[in-house]
Amino acid sequence: LIAVNADRLRADFRALCEIGRTQAGGVSRTTFSDAHLDAREWFLRRAVAAGLETRVDAAGNHSAVLAAARSSAPTLLLGSHLDSVPDGGRFDGALGVVAALEALRAVNDAGLALPVALEAIDFTDEEGSLVGLLGSLALAGALTQELLEAPRGGRESLVAELARVGLSEAQLKDARRPPEALAGYLELHIEQGPELQRHRAQIGVVTAIAGSRSFRLLFEGAARHAGTTPMSSRRDALLGAARFALLVRDTVVDRFPGCVGTVGAIEVEPSAFNVVPGRARLLLELRSPAAEQLDALEAQLFRSAHRAAASDGLDLTIERVGRWDPVELDAKTQAAIERGAQDLGLSTLRLVSGAGHDAQALAPVTRAGMIFVPSIDGISHDPAEHTSWLHCLNGANVLLRAALSLAQSSSG
Amino acid sequence: LIAVNADRLRADFRALCEIGRTQAGGVSRTTFSDAHLDAREWFLRRAVAAGLETRVDAAGNHSAVLAAARSSAPTLLLGSHLDSVPDGGRFDGALGVVAALEALRAVNDAGLALPVALEAIDFTDEEGSLVGLLGSLALAGALTQELLEAPRGGRESLVAELARVGLSEAQLKDARRPPEALAGYLELHIEQGPELQRHRAQIGVVTAIAGSRSFRLLFEGAARHAGTTPMSSRRDALLGAARFALLVRDTVVDRFPGCVGTVGAIEVEPSAFNVVPGRARLLLELRSPAAEQLDALEAQLFRSAHRAAASDGLDLTIERVGRWDPVELDAKTQAAIERGAQDLGLSTLRLVSGAGHDAQALAPVTRAGMIFVPSIDGISHDPAEHTSWLHCLNGANVLLRAALSLAQSSSG
Repeated sequence: LIAVNADRLRADFRALCEIGRTQAGGVSRTTFSDAHLDAREWFLRRAVAAGLETRVDAAGNHSAVLAAARSSAPTLLLGSHLDSVPDGGRFDGALGVVAALEALRAVNDAGLALPVALEAIDFTDEEGSLVGLLGSLALAGALTQELLEAPRGGRESLVAELARVGLSEAQLKDARRPPEALAGYLELHIEQGPELQRHRAQIGVVTAIAGSRSFRLLFEGAARHAGTTPMSSRRDALLGAARFALLVRDTVVDRFPGCVGTVGAIEVEPSAFNVVPGRARLLLELRSPAAEQLDALEAQLFRSAHRAAASDGLDLTIERVGRWDPVELDAKTQAAIERGAQDLGLSTLRLVSGAGHDAQALAPVTRAGMIFVPSIDGISHDPAEHTSWLHCLNGANVLLRAALSLAQSSSG
Repeated sequence: LIAVNADRLRADFRALCEIGRTQAGGVSRTTFSDAHLDAREWFLRRAVAAGLETRVDAAGNHSAVLAAARSSAPTLLLGSHLDSVPDGGRFDGALGVVAALEALRAVNDAGLALPVALEAIDFTDEEGSLVGLLGSLALAGALTQELLEAPRGGRESLVAELARVGLSEAQLKDARRPPEALAGYLELHIEQGPELQRHRAQIGVVTAIAGSRSFRLLFEGAARHAGTTPMSSRRDALLGAARFALLVRDTVVDRFPGCVGTVGAIEVEPSAFNVVPGRARLLLELRSPAAEQLDALEAQLFRSAHRAAASDGLDLTIERVGRWDPVELDAKTQAAIERGAQDLGLSTLRLVSGAGHDAQALAPVTRAGMIFVPSIDGISHDPAEHTSWLHCLNGANVLLRAALSLAQSSSG
């Protein structure tokens, strides 16, 4: 039976780990960094070496393509991303891209003629140094002006970085593919959470992807001399921000068990030993697979935050930065993944993804599915991120089988 | 009767406000910045223009000197500092230096022969971009190797900055003056707190200067993906740091009413929306006029901090950065200041300084005294720092009178 070439896959993965490798043993390939651009070039070279066509679209998505016999056939996308968070791990995104490329080579080597084209795609800026899911949203036709005007990484950075790599903001939207041109989307990814390990399952079948909302908060008090300003007359912005960070945790733990809430960053001004902080800025992110839970959590946190700030004499400004609605993944695709795993004798677990993925952008326009493999201790976005090679290989074979199954059923 | 020349003093103060002026209307003259060096040069030029001798010692202290008739006479120092915190106010330090210079000119103009030399001195690095009280500690012979090895602003910055302005670390200690060469130290300064305004007093007579202790704290947990790591399995360093910041406030307010405690800065890593913070660094400062209170507060805070960190699964490292013992100022000098104010019909208030000053370094080796004038709303270390010109002028005249009184009683 058809399978991926384990040695070839492993050699590719190892080569990719060297691009942007950090001292800590992870990789740092933020969007459009030198290491990221090098990884993308490496990917195109590997595609050419395998006799595949290559493609770079108006959003900078990089692809290897195995054409169908019929030129009007729709395309089944297999993909992930080569960008990483700063000082991230080796597996997040990279595994899915090399597995997709290997799936195309395996089909090509076997001389199979499919009724769909297969495309291994490396999406631009999944992690969000700039926007987040930039490439997949563009391909799905969901890149809004609102997102481009107030991106996660700041407007200035987006404009400068697009210009630097020769992309045109106005043309990003030209990367859109009409839904009828797509036969579906499949992604292999590490779980980045502890559930598969905890349940000793080999393959995760993703049923839904949690939605997320992100916000910038600014607490404003008064910068005063720390030695001469009595405790009772201070308006200390850091204390308001600290109270809010603890409130986020307590509210989620006590009342929203299906959600997570994180204050991932805090900065104060003037930031000195001897000055009471006059300003504190926080980054907040909330996630849940249920939109109504996100609505309720957001509303409750902001009521409490405004009350707490007022009682400390602080002003509070809340700016909405990002919003991804939760999505359910395609049932037929989930079944194809499960069958593929069962055929290989692998145990499966259905689960929700707490992390965001490009599948989120594609699910509204095409059948989308995701295959997870276990992350040791759930560690991710960290150099210690690890998945055993056997799990990686199993995931790649499940990806190949699910792809073939969907390809054959997409002929209509 | 002898008095300062109000127009000349005001012109000097205004000229100084232009050096390092910020858009917000304050000044930014951190130690050895261009603006700071410009202000020091301006000061020497004004001294030369007034026919005074000038002096720059091995610690970079800048002085104008009015010699005594007898060359072996001791020196009465009048001074403050021309450096500022980043984005600071116009009065902190600068007022004391221009008032000291004006006092020398007033004595010179009056042709008074005093039994002591008068020296208007601008001390190096009072605010502590590098070390804090660097110049006055060197002059007092109290600059320890320990301070130079682990300075507030970091060792690298100290070494680089001294080299850049042509000072030798090894020779800093040569700035020491033997106690018998000193007749005392007097400093005019804005209060930087609200007490004079609250009591409607025109002149503050400082009885003691609070001691301070400063620390760097590092909370270490584990950086994890914010979307996939359940709340229950997080070791979020920011939450430990937030809990500690609130604990500092509550402990001081509830149990140490004579102290202040401030977390003035916080930084987390990796610092992103979607990563649980793995590390949080805090800057902590405690102040009190009573050393035993500082001992007790420090001990209690650190017990609680270690307990809190352990219960959150975090590691905690505490590094001691600075320690200034509280000092009492000279009783005879306090009386001279009070008499000077009373002769001018100005109301006085005895008070403790919560802020640190060069007088702290000098009090152990010579009679030291400080004159405070009211700060509007106690605002300081901020562009909005303000003292009415009449209060400034009153302070300068009290400085002159107290200096003459101490000079005449120092002849022995």
